[in-house]
Amino acid sequence: MATATVQTLFEGIRRGDRASLARGITLVESTRADHRQQARELVAACVGVERPRSLRIGLTGTPGVGKSTFIETLGMMLIRKGHRVSVLAVDPSSARSGGSILGDKTRMQELSVAEGAYVRPSPSRGTLGGVARNTLDSIILAEASGYDVCLVETVGVGQSETMVADMVDMFVLLMQPGSGDELQGVKRGIMELADLVVVNKADGPLELAAKLTRTEVLNALHLMLPRRPSWTPKVVRASATTGHNLDRVWSTVLRFFDELRASGEWDKLRAEQQRKWMWREVSHLLLAALDRDPAVRACARSLEAGVLGGTVAPSAAAEQIVDRFLVPRR
Amino acid sequence: MATATVQTLFEGIRRGDRASLARGITLVESTRADHRQQARELVAACVGVERPRSLRIGLTGTPGVGKSTFIETLGMMLIRKGHRVSVLAVDPSSARSGGSILGDKTRMQELSVAEGAYVRPSPSRGTLGGVARNTLDSIILAEASGYDVCLVETVGVGQSETMVADMVDMFVLLMQPGSGDELQGVKRGIMELADLVVVNKADGPLELAAKLTRTEVLNALHLMLPRRPSWTPKVVRASATTGHNLDRVWSTVLRFFDELRASGEWDKLRAEQQRKWMWREVSHLLLAALDRDPAVRACARSLEAGVLGGTVAPSAAAEQIVDRFLVPRR
Repeated sequence: MATATVQTLFEGIRRGDRASLARGITLVESTRADHRQQARELVAACVGVERPRSLRIGLTGTPGVGKSTFIETLGMMLIRKGHRVSVLAVDPSSARSGGSILGDKTRMQELSVAEGAYVRPSPSRGTLGGVARNTLDSIILAEASGYDVCLVETVGVGQSETMVADMVDMFVLLMQPGSGDELQGVKRGIMELADLVVVNKADGPLELAAKLTRTEVLNALHLMLPRRPSWTPKVVRASATTGHNLDRVWSTVLRFFDELRASGEWDKLRAEQQRKWMWREVSHLLLAALDRDPAVRACARSLEAGVLGGTVAPSAAAEQIVDRFLVPRR
Repeated sequence: MATATVQTLFEGIRRGDRASLARGITLVESTRADHRQQARELVAACVGVERPRSLRIGLTGTPGVGKSTFIETLGMMLIRKGHRVSVLAVDPSSARSGGSILGDKTRMQELSVAEGAYVRPSPSRGTLGGVARNTLDSIILAEASGYDVCLVETVGVGQSETMVADMVDMFVLLMQPGSGDELQGVKRGIMELADLVVVNKADGPLELAAKLTRTEVLNALHLMLPRRPSWTPKVVRASATTGHNLDRVWSTVLRFFDELRASGEWDKLRAEQQRKWMWREVSHLLLAALDRDPAVRACARSLEAGVLGGTVAPSAAAEQIVDRFLVPRR
C-alpha cells in the first residue's frame, strides 16, 4: 500500500465508507514494518478530522450474560435515534479458538448489516497486548468515519478490561440475575471499573432475582469510594431480549456524559488517557526493541532464570539488562 | 561508602544488627549513582542468604482505622510467639507532609523499640514510584537480617497498593465498623486485593455495627471471583485496642499460608512476582534513561503537547519518541 493509497483510504474513511474503515483497521492491526508506517500516516490524518467528540463506551460481561444480544438491541435502538454506532471487540480468546470472527458476525445479525453501524469482528491476532494497543487507533479511525458512539467489547475475564478502561470514557458491566454465591464469574477488579452495571435478563421468572442482584451490587459499590469525582456508579435492571429498560440504560449513559461534561472531567479524562497511552506505548516499544536484540535477549533470559531461582535480585537483574541494551549505543 | 563498607554492612545485616539494616535500607533508597552501585552489591549479597521463606504481608486501611495500633498490638503478639517482625511503610503522603517519620516512631512506641522488631519510618523521598520500587529491596534486606514476618504498610488511598500487592504474599485490608453509606473511604480496587479483611474496633458500642459491616463486606466479596485459586478472602472482626480476636486474625493468616504452600501457589506467586518486578524495573529504567536525554525529552514534551491537544495520535507520538531515543545509538 503506497502513500497514495493511504490517502485514498483516508478519504474513504472520512466519507463514512465501511469497506475503507475495515481496511484501515486491518492496516492498524498489522505488525509489518511498512504497514506500521502507513498506519501511522493514516491515524495521523484521521486525528486531524474535526468531529464532535464521540462517546467511547467499554462494555464487558462474562460469556452467557447476553452481551451480543444486548449490543445488538441497544445498537439498533441507537441507530433509530440517529446515532452511528461502531462496535470493536477485544477478545483474548480469539487466539485460542482460532478467531471468533464468524461468531460475532452471526451473533449480531441485524446490527452488523445495518446502515449506520460498523461491527468489527474480533481480531484474530495472537497477543492481547497488541490487539488492545491498536484498539485506540481503531477508535480514532471509526471516529473520523463519523461514528459518534464507539462501543468496545471485552469478555470480562480480566486480562483486557483495565487497558480498555484506559481508552474509553465510560465502562459498562453486564451481569445476570443471581446471587454472588451462584458466582457471577466477574473477575475481581472489573466491578471496580464499572460506571454502570446492567443486570440483564431482568424478565419473566428472573425478574425478582434481578432486583435482589441489583441491591447486592449496589451494596458492594457503596462500600467503595466512587471512581470518578462527578459520578456515582448506577445499577439498572434491563432485558436485551424484551428491550425492557434499554431506554433507561441509554438515558443513564447520557446522564453520565452530561455530568462529566459539566464538571470538566471529560476533558481531563481524555487528556490523561492520551498521555498515559502515549507513555505506555513508549514503554512497550522500548521493551520490544530490547527484545529484538539477540545478545540482550540472551542476557535477559539468563538473568530472569536467576531471578526466578531466587539467586538474583530483580532490581539488579533489571539494571544489568538495561545497561546491556543501552551502553553499547552510547 | 566503599565496597569494603558494603561487606561490613552486609555482615551487620546478616547477624541481625538493626543499625546496619537501617543504614542498608537508606542506601537502597538513595538515588545517587555511587549508592546505586553499592546498593546493588548489598542486595545481591542479601539475596544469597539462606533463610526460611518469610511471610510478606501487605497491610492497608484509610487513616483513622487504627492501623498503627493494630500493627503495634499484632506485632507485639508475634514477638511473644518468637517471630521477628519488620514493618516497612509506603506512604505517599510523606512527600507532602515533609515526612511522617516522627509520627510513625511515636505511634508504635512499644514495637519500635522492641527486641525482635524493626520499624522503618516512612520514607521521606518525594516520588512514590521510587519508594515503592525500593521496597522489595528493603524486604530482601530485612529477610537477610532474620525477620520472618515482613509487614508492608500503605495508607489505602490507592496509589501504592497495587505495587505493594505485587511484592507481598498476602494482602490485609483494615476497615472500621460502619455501613458503606457512611463511606469507608476505601478506594475502589483495594478491596479487590484483600485476602483478609479485618473489621477493626469491633468492641464496645461498635460491636453490632462491626457484625453488619462484616456481612456487607462478605456479600461484596461474594459477588466477585476469588483472586487466588486456593483461597477465598475471609473477613474477621477484631479490636486492636482490647486485643480481641487478634489470635484469630493471625491463625487466619497462617491458614492462608498453609493453603498457598500446600497448593504450590506460593512458589508460583513468588516466581511470578519476581519476574514481573524485574520487567517493571526494566521499563522504569528505560524510561528514566530516555528522560535523561535532553533532546529526546524536548521532543517528548512537544509531542505530548500535541497528544494532549488532540492533534497527534498517542501511538504515532510514541513511535517518534522511541525512534529519537534509539536510532542515534545504532
